[in-house]
Amino acid sequence: MSDPLVIAIDSSTSASKAVVVDTQGRVLSSGKADIDMLTPAMDMYEHDPVQWWSSTESAIRQACAALEESDRKRIRALCITHQRESFALVDEDGEALRPAILWLDARAGEQIREYGSDHIHELSGKPADTTPALYKIAWLKKHEPEVLAEAHRLVDVHAYLAHRLVGRWVSAVGSADTLNLLDIANVDYSDELLDIAGVTREQMAELAQPASVIDTIKPELLHSWGLADDVVLVAGVGDGQAAGLGTSAIAEDVAYVNIGTSIVAGVHAFEFAYSPAYRTLLGGIPGSFVLEIVQNSGSVLANWFRSELGDPSKAGGLDEELDRAAAELEPGTEGLLTVPYWNAVQSPHWDPFAKGIMVGFGTAHTRAHMYRSIIEGMAMELRGNLERVQKSTGRRLTELRATGGGSHNPLYRKIFADATGLPLVVSGAEEVSAQGAAMMAMAAIGAYPDVQSASEGMSSFVDRTEPDMDAYHVYGEWAEIQQEIYPKLADIFTRINARK
Amino acid sequence: MSDPLVIAIDSSTSASKAVVVDTQGRVLSSGKADIDMLTPAMDMYEHDPVQWWSSTESAIRQACAALEESDRKRIRALCITHQRESFALVDEDGEALRPAILWLDARAGEQIREYGSDHIHELSGKPADTTPALYKIAWLKKHEPEVLAEAHRLVDVHAYLAHRLVGRWVSAVGSADTLNLLDIANVDYSDELLDIAGVTREQMAELAQPASVIDTIKPELLHSWGLADDVVLVAGVGDGQAAGLGTSAIAEDVAYVNIGTSIVAGVHAFEFAYSPAYRTLLGGIPGSFVLEIVQNSGSVLANWFRSELGDPSKAGGLDEELDRAAAELEPGTEGLLTVPYWNAVQSPHWDPFAKGIMVGFGTAHTRAHMYRSIIEGMAMELRGNLERVQKSTGRRLTELRATGGGSHNPLYRKIFADATGLPLVVSGAEEVSAQGAAMMAMAAIGAYPDVQSASEGMSSFVDRTEPDMDAYHVYGEWAEIQQEIYPKLADIFTRINARK
Repeated sequence: MSDPLVIAIDSSTSASKAVVVDTQGRVLSSGKADIDMLTPAMDMYEHDPVQWWSSTESAIRQACAALEESDRKRIRALCITHQRESFALVDEDGEALRPAILWLDARAGEQIREYGSDHIHELSGKPADTTPALYKIAWLKKHEPEVLAEAHRLVDVHAYLAHRLVGRWVSAVGSADTLNLLDIANVDYSDELLDIAGVTREQMAELAQPASVIDTIKPELLHSWGLADDVVLVAGVGDGQAAGLGTSAIAEDVAYVNIGTSIVAGVHAFEFAYSPAYRTLLGGIPGSFVLEIVQNSGSVLANWFRSELGDPSKAGGLDEELDRAAAELEPGTEGLLTVPYWNAVQSPHWDPFAKGIMVGFGTAHTRAHMYRSIIEGMAMELRGNLERVQKSTGRRLTELRATGGGSHNPLYRKIFADATGLPLVVSGAEEVSAQGAAMMAMAAIGAYPDVQSASEGMSSFVDRTEPDMDAYHVYGEWAEIQQEIYPKLADIFTRINARK
Repeated sequence: MSDPLVIAIDSSTSASKAVVVDTQGRVLSSGKADIDMLTPAMDMYEHDPVQWWSSTESAIRQACAALEESDRKRIRALCITHQRESFALVDEDGEALRPAILWLDARAGEQIREYGSDHIHELSGKPADTTPALYKIAWLKKHEPEVLAEAHRLVDVHAYLAHRLVGRWVSAVGSADTLNLLDIANVDYSDELLDIAGVTREQMAELAQPASVIDTIKPELLHSWGLADDVVLVAGVGDGQAAGLGTSAIAEDVAYVNIGTSIVAGVHAFEFAYSPAYRTLLGGIPGSFVLEIVQNSGSVLANWFRSELGDPSKAGGLDEELDRAAAELEPGTEGLLTVPYWNAVQSPHWDPFAKGIMVGFGTAHTRAHMYRSIIEGMAMELRGNLERVQKSTGRRLTELRATGGGSHNPLYRKIFADATGLPLVVSGAEEVSAQGAAMMAMAAIGAYPDVQSASEGMSSFVDRTEPDMDAYHVYGEWAEIQQEIYPKLADIFTRINARK
């Protein structure tokens, strides 16, 4: 097969997407189907896992139907990337015993306090936080022990979909890792963590190495999609790690950043490391780790500002005049500093009670000052977190590969490049996580010798913003002040939270 | 004379006003003329003192011209209240040697750091701060020593106008006191303070007791205004103290608050006391002190918010929808706390570098949350400062007399009454400082036995808002957190200021 195609699945919190990609990384067709969010109570977020499969199957069917017959027959493999940390409990037939509990579900505060520790951070690579499954499984151990005990399997999205596709409960190591049940340095389940969660090794999925072939997909599925009968399922990785791969941020001096609703940034590493600045995950390249910075308040803040404090006639949409006015201001926005913890803080403080702070208001400040200050706040946080990554790993970054909505806005590009002092190169891929999964699939079928070369060959870039190093130094002086604010006020937030 | 009238002058930073008032406190006529602000450099604010007189004379002329001849002849006295702390240097003929330097002029930061001390606070009643003349006179000692040395008199607005009216350089003690050159407990100039300022006792105005008759006004002036030939000038007081008198906040358990551009609140006292919560001034009642809370950021903040972060179609004006939405929120605005130091802080921290802080932002907060939080911030500051006044004086307040623009807005009234736990009673006088001067004039001519009874007889009230004591307790818990924020961040502001 000289010119193969692969299907990359990205099953996210809101929808499953399927894209058909060629060896150059070009997207030939795509499909998408939504997933319904269930919110049974305050702070609880669930899915019916049947929809993980039905949306994926529908997306694949759409993507395949949009191809010519001849192109459908070129498809050789399918690889899954997906929302991380979410899990389902299933019986032997794959029927869900209860709704799946999602990464953003915050029910397990008590278990985080009870079990969270530096030791678990070192063992698993993951600081105690709302998102990992570990604490929510421990919540089930306390509140729904029978369901947990009778589950045939406890599965992440990858294993759930793999069972539907090939009939086996198989997860990829970089998928299962996000449950926070692995001894990450040894790339295997940890008995200690399984014990905290209250599950047995037998209840867990098999673990496949990234970009390894798991099995041939069931013939009845391939037939119904009009595909050849030897299409294989390739072990994928969680969507965050896949995004880093999708931007080809694999060299030691290159980081990626997704400036989306949240800001997620990271680097690949080939030695285990852990630090409060990041969480450590298994990556999409065999043997790799991803050191992942998570800043929970990204463009959601700028959108919030435009909706709640912008010109009502713009209805929260883009406001070119506001962007222009913000662009004209100097770094530091005349002394108005933002700590962008509207949605709590993960890197580097991991405080679920933290909230946003703005310091330095004067009557000379305008709407544009506040808007710019919020964006600068995110960028200065990223600067600090990237500095901590470099310090912890001894490397020196020279480039930032950007994706997400913010990367398409010149105001963001300028502020992020200047604040971090790194050239900001925008990825050409629209679905960068799916692109990462496609790279893994192409490597698995031998279209490239390995995942790294697939990543290099299939990535593309559309814009490069060089940093203004004078502005970088000015941001450095502001960031030094800005980064002192939260530690001084940290105890306030516990008290504000207790009063609300 | 059974039914006398008096003229009260209020010569402020922007204009001089004259009102003709009867024994019931009713205003029969008024006049007003503007004063031009001079801003020779950043942070420098000056007046040509000739305009103090020309605007005053014009305002008197208008007010008299608007009366019937028979009413003009009822006028028995004139009393002056005025912008405080501003001063002029004059020669023997009363010609200004340089422009007058105003209370808001911030040129003397170096002198505040050099001379400001707790000792000076205790001696003069005034914490080191931007507004008192002392530091600006010391600035002249350094930068314009010849002008200072050759000045025949260094005069406040009262003495300047008195010279024009009666030909003598006479200030009232509660007027000259605002220069910060008095040993306040002894109600006389302090040699120590005069020495810091670099002026001699001979260069200073005579000091008249409040509500004492200074002299008969020059016949040519009285004649030109159509007044009787025995109208006297009565020693007045600074406009802040006059406002407290104008609301008749003279009992031990009654405080006043002017919710204007700034928030100025206080109580009368008959023993000297000093504290970081307030500055101590000589009052309009003979033998009295006024303990004055100054919160530099008042309705200027709400106006700023509406102009800069409100609906642009409202052009910064009142927005009833915004007020209504803000009124529906609970105390504490769902955890969004404001430290309202946009224009620095006076009571209780006296930090010219302080700026505004907002803590607790989440994406559920709306425009109305931010607006309400700012108003709550002012009210919680007032709560804290009034608590400090009560603690320092051992008294217990039971009522708050309110004036100023904010007192006419139900949202402010509700928040200020609930946050302070005090019934908020709105003064019926439109020009409350002038009303205070009129009370002093009426007492001086014997229409009342003393200033207190004039104040009681001539004041009126238009609205009373009872506090919701449940809300008061809720505000107390929020205020406890809110008041911890600034001390934790105080050192940040010096650094922000140094970088701007």
